Amino acid sequence: MSAPNAPGLAGHQQEQFLQVLSRDDAEAAFMAALGPRPLGAEEVALEALLGRVLARDIAAPVDAPPFDRAVVDGFALRAADLFEASEAEPVRLRLNPEVIHCGTAPALPVAPGTATPIATGGPIPRGADAVVMIEHTEPEGDGIAVARAVAPGSFIGFAGSDIARGQTLLRRGVVIGAREVAMLAAVGLDRAPVWRKPRVAVLSTGDELVRPGDPLRPAGVYDSNGPVIAAALAENGCEAVHLGAIPDDEAQLTEAVRAAFAAHDALILSGGTSKGAGDLTTRVIAGLGAPGIVAHGVALKPGKPLCLAVCDGKPVAVLPGFPTSAMFTLHEMVAPVLRIMAGLPPRGAARIEAVLPLRLGSELGRTEFAMVALTEGPEGAVAHPVGKGSGAVTAFAQADGFLTVPALVDSLAAGTRAEVTLFGVGVAAPRLAVIGSHCVGLDAVVGRLAGQGMTARILATGSQGGLAALARRECDIAPIHLFDPATDSFNTPYLADGMRLIPGWRRMQGLVFRAGDARLAGKGVAEALAALLADPEAIMVNRNQGAGTRVLIDRLLAGARPQGYWNQPNSHNAVAAAVAQGRADWGVAIRPAAEALGLGFLPVAEEHYDFAVWQDPRDAAALEAFEAALAQSRDELHALGFDPR
Amino acid sequence: MSAPNAPGLAGHQQEQFLQVLSRDDAEAAFMAALGPRPLGAEEVALEALLGRVLARDIAAPVDAPPFDRAVVDGFALRAADLFEASEAEPVRLRLNPEVIHCGTAPALPVAPGTATPIATGGPIPRGADAVVMIEHTEPEGDGIAVARAVAPGSFIGFAGSDIARGQTLLRRGVVIGAREVAMLAAVGLDRAPVWRKPRVAVLSTGDELVRPGDPLRPAGVYDSNGPVIAAALAENGCEAVHLGAIPDDEAQLTEAVRAAFAAHDALILSGGTSKGAGDLTTRVIAGLGAPGIVAHGVALKPGKPLCLAVCDGKPVAVLPGFPTSAMFTLHEMVAPVLRIMAGLPPRGAARIEAVLPLRLGSELGRTEFAMVALTEGPEGAVAHPVGKGSGAVTAFAQADGFLTVPALVDSLAAGTRAEVTLFGVGVAAPRLAVIGSHCVGLDAVVGRLAGQGMTARILATGSQGGLAALARRECDIAPIHLFDPATDSFNTPYLADGMRLIPGWRRMQGLVFRAGDARLAGKGVAEALAALLADPEAIMVNRNQGAGTRVLIDRLLAGARPQGYWNQPNSHNAVAAAVAQGRADWGVAIRPAAEALGLGFLPVAEEHYDFAVWQDPRDAAALEAFEAALAQSRDELHALGFDPR
Repeated sequence: MSAPNAPGLAGHQQEQFLQVLSRDDAEAAFMAALGPRPLGAEEVALEALLGRVLARDIAAPVDAPPFDRAVVDGFALRAADLFEASEAEPVRLRLNPEVIHCGTAPALPVAPGTATPIATGGPIPRGADAVVMIEHTEPEGDGIAVARAVAPGSFIGFAGSDIARGQTLLRRGVVIGAREVAMLAAVGLDRAPVWRKPRVAVLSTGDELVRPGDPLRPAGVYDSNGPVIAAALAENGCEAVHLGAIPDDEAQLTEAVRAAFAAHDALILSGGTSKGAGDLTTRVIAGLGAPGIVAHGVALKPGKPLCLAVCDGKPVAVLPGFPTSAMFTLHEMVAPVLRIMAGLPPRGAARIEAVLPLRLGSELGRTEFAMVALTEGPEGAVAHPVGKGSGAVTAFAQADGFLTVPALVDSLAAGTRAEVTLFGVGVAAPRLAVIGSHCVGLDAVVGRLAGQGMTARILATGSQGGLAALARRECDIAPIHLFDPATDSFNTPYLADGMRLIPGWRRMQGLVFRAGDARLAGKGVAEALAALLADPEAIMVNRNQGAGTRVLIDRLLAGARPQGYWNQPNSHNAVAAAVAQGRADWGVAIRPAAEALGLGFLPVAEEHYDFAVWQDPRDAAALEAFEAALAQSRDELHALGFDPR
Repeated sequence: MSAPNAPGLAGHQQEQFLQVLSRDDAEAAFMAALGPRPLGAEEVALEALLGRVLARDIAAPVDAPPFDRAVVDGFALRAADLFEASEAEPVRLRLNPEVIHCGTAPALPVAPGTATPIATGGPIPRGADAVVMIEHTEPEGDGIAVARAVAPGSFIGFAGSDIARGQTLLRRGVVIGAREVAMLAAVGLDRAPVWRKPRVAVLSTGDELVRPGDPLRPAGVYDSNGPVIAAALAENGCEAVHLGAIPDDEAQLTEAVRAAFAAHDALILSGGTSKGAGDLTTRVIAGLGAPGIVAHGVALKPGKPLCLAVCDGKPVAVLPGFPTSAMFTLHEMVAPVLRIMAGLPPRGAARIEAVLPLRLGSELGRTEFAMVALTEGPEGAVAHPVGKGSGAVTAFAQADGFLTVPALVDSLAAGTRAEVTLFGVGVAAPRLAVIGSHCVGLDAVVGRLAGQGMTARILATGSQGGLAALARRECDIAPIHLFDPATDSFNTPYLADGMRLIPGWRRMQGLVFRAGDARLAGKGVAEALAALLADPEAIMVNRNQGAGTRVLIDRLLAGARPQGYWNQPNSHNAVAAAVAQGRADWGVAIRPAAEALGLGFLPVAEEHYDFAVWQDPRDAAALEAFEAALAQSRDELHALGFDPR
């Protein structure tokens, strides 16, 4: 490893990953040092028990029902009186002078030859051993006539037949839902002992972090880890206390960490997106208590920088700063321990088998998790990897689940059937799968469909990726904007046999620049471009190879290679951001991207954004609905700055 | 229909079920009269969003990341500078005098031939179009040497590459979990518009109802419907307000109902267990507003007495009083409407196929739901019906799900493969299935197993039912206590070929009577029995045919048929309750049942409670664990009043 003379970077590099443990070794060391167990029981009232974990077995203190009772409206009587009753010779019974309702304690016994009117739920009076339904009796004088025999016990619900006193009603460890509430209430319990929820402090660290809701300053990024870790902890039975983001200042961090550690049952930190920040927090927690750090560096991808510690019997974790890494390591390594402290069983995860559409490369020696979104293909579920690097918050958020690539495997071939661990339980394939290039106009159309109850999923892979998925019939619609220089036309030349194009809309592309740039004031496109190319200080931002816009840019440049030519992001938004933030002075993007950031815009040429589909689609009705929604969205598309066809 | 002269019953009978609607007609009428829709949006802060339902589409107000950033620690530079770099001829770059950390806004552009140290997450400076990893550089003088070319864009996360400004981030109707919190926070949103939760008033009605936590008065039963309906509403996105139980008094009920209706978005009443109470509430709600009652009587079993109304645009429902009926009609007919008002999608229900072990009778003309508990049989899941009549709170609580018998089917044959709708999602077959006679001693043994992490399910079917399930290999253990008069022995004569008996414990049976009964004071069994049989006022309580205790009782009676002989409940607890509550004066039960109610007890004979199992069990290790837990439970069994073998 090198040690370049870059102040503030070299040091971090040397301290990190002194010993990378395997996933299982790290877990074993964490578990052994902590010995996690529930924190203690507390009595909680019935109305606040939902979702809590029962701390002790509950035995029924009374029978339910508490007495023998009628289960129909009718008459309580002695079965022996009716043994010889028949249609030919009905038996007459005198009525006792009381009516037993629910809640009425019977005052009179039922003597032979008598009956007592009783309502459903009424307690059976002494002497009676059966109930006859009111429909099977006839009034006769001051009594009733019964024309059929009844078995002893008929229409009686015996005491304790539902729940017997002393019976174990609920077992410790059960998560209380409505059904458990019913059991407790039925035997008169208005509270139950449940495990206390672990109180877990969450601290984000990093100079760059900005609290959501505050304006974003230059070089600032929003702190998403803090809120999402708190939410994930709540989903795992903890009471999370998000204490906000702390800058990478050792004194400030030490004070915040010590205070949080002292006041809570566990402490979770997440670095900013910088490794340096992770190191600082690691130094700080090492001093919290014995035994201290048990794992720093785990052979997980994403998640290698994870640091696990146990200090004075409390778990402490420093999660990697990248959102997906943070969530993965939280769920994989930290949540299981906190669930034990909360008295919860391990999280049950549903799994399904799915086909991998593309080869998935992996790093040997690290257990690797690839987040996937599911669509329905011709041979069942298809798992599209959605990892855009662990820096992406959307990778975790948009995935339906993940597949695990073992440490000793270096890739999974296209077509591999792999087991996907689902994040949720109700994963239903969407009615329409849309894979390809993304556009905010597409959101408008799909939003309209969603309003009509049709589920659709959009996976943004770019035009080529969408066409390939469509060719494999792994999606229904591929939105594309591909320019063919040979025919000087969009999209149609790229369709395979059997595909057709649903016309979408035109998007005006043009020169974008900071409003007020004197080099372009009042100029047309050609003049402006000439001025920019003549200025040695001007820096452009290009687009990626394969983008339709790139073809346009190369035409405009006519062989020139100005500064910034090699800066090649893959979206209109990234081009606009580079110009707005001063990393570049000009580029080519669509009008809405420029307008959103208040940039100047000189129109150059339209791009065609259309939808490739099969002529014999999997779900013709869904495609029809899409085309209808497209037609209904014209006004909205116009308002967004597009020109619908 | 008859009209017997039973005051207080006849009237109810006539008013009820004037027109019984089919399930679908009732639902259609309810939906049409209400036209349910979400109630309105409210802004809720990020930390309180978990579980809420998004009311509007959310578009990203900023790009994420907000700027191009480094995704590794290294150096920001111009890819063009390294085009010709090689091991043989490394390229030297001067370092610019700044280090870009996370949160540092770059001050200096990267000119050709220079590089700037940059940490992971740091913003890319103007002029740079790639990052080279620190590991791939060597320090050299006041600069670095790089021995390989890099592609433009290497190790840069472009602005908007994760989330593009303007992109629809979350769609309305989504239930917010940790992943959705992550998306919102990542674009700086600290709140979101969600649907307001419907506030639903819950009132139980019935003279007999006692609030859980209060002592049970004679003829009183605990109000379990109120708490469980409130809990089920909370599980369906509502804010439930349980207003307690109201007696069956028209004035009092009218006042309570009007106040509750005025102050909430919906009103749910549940009758006591009496039909009369249901009628009263129906009368009261009929006056709340137009159009009023839309269905009263629905062809559902359980659930026929259900009453649905719409008053001034609010849904009002009167659920049947029996707990299982109440929960079924709530989930089947009312919750779907409330979910729409809460903005929630229909509840997804998992389904599995299971074999019915016994014929299941059904009533023609009513859609019938049978609650089932699942075990693993030789041909997959087995669905054991657990309905003990709709009066049972446990039927709903102990079931894994239910199967639906269509209105036009009168029975399902044993062996039928039927679709079971699961109540939960994580239904795993227990490791040990125990079906047969229940005993609190069994709870102790199984509790010990549960403490060791072994799941077991107990279904109380009685000894004969357990043996039959064991014979079909639908359970692992059948607890039995069957007396064989021919051999004067317990249990062994009932085993089939290939079964064996695990010895359990002995339970002392004896005469039970109210302590202080002068007829029995100081007497032995024979003397006491003679005194009871000689008293024409004395009433006994018997046991069901087939119970081992019944054989003992018939021996004791030696042909006598005293009063109460035909009162034949099927459990020791019911016998003890009948005596304690004065419905009977004596009976025969086991000692713990008598002691629990403070009854007198004269020992007569021991009953053998043993465990029938197969000699070649499905899971030998689980059986071994059971036998070990049995051996470890000796002290506990002794303490419960049993005599372990």
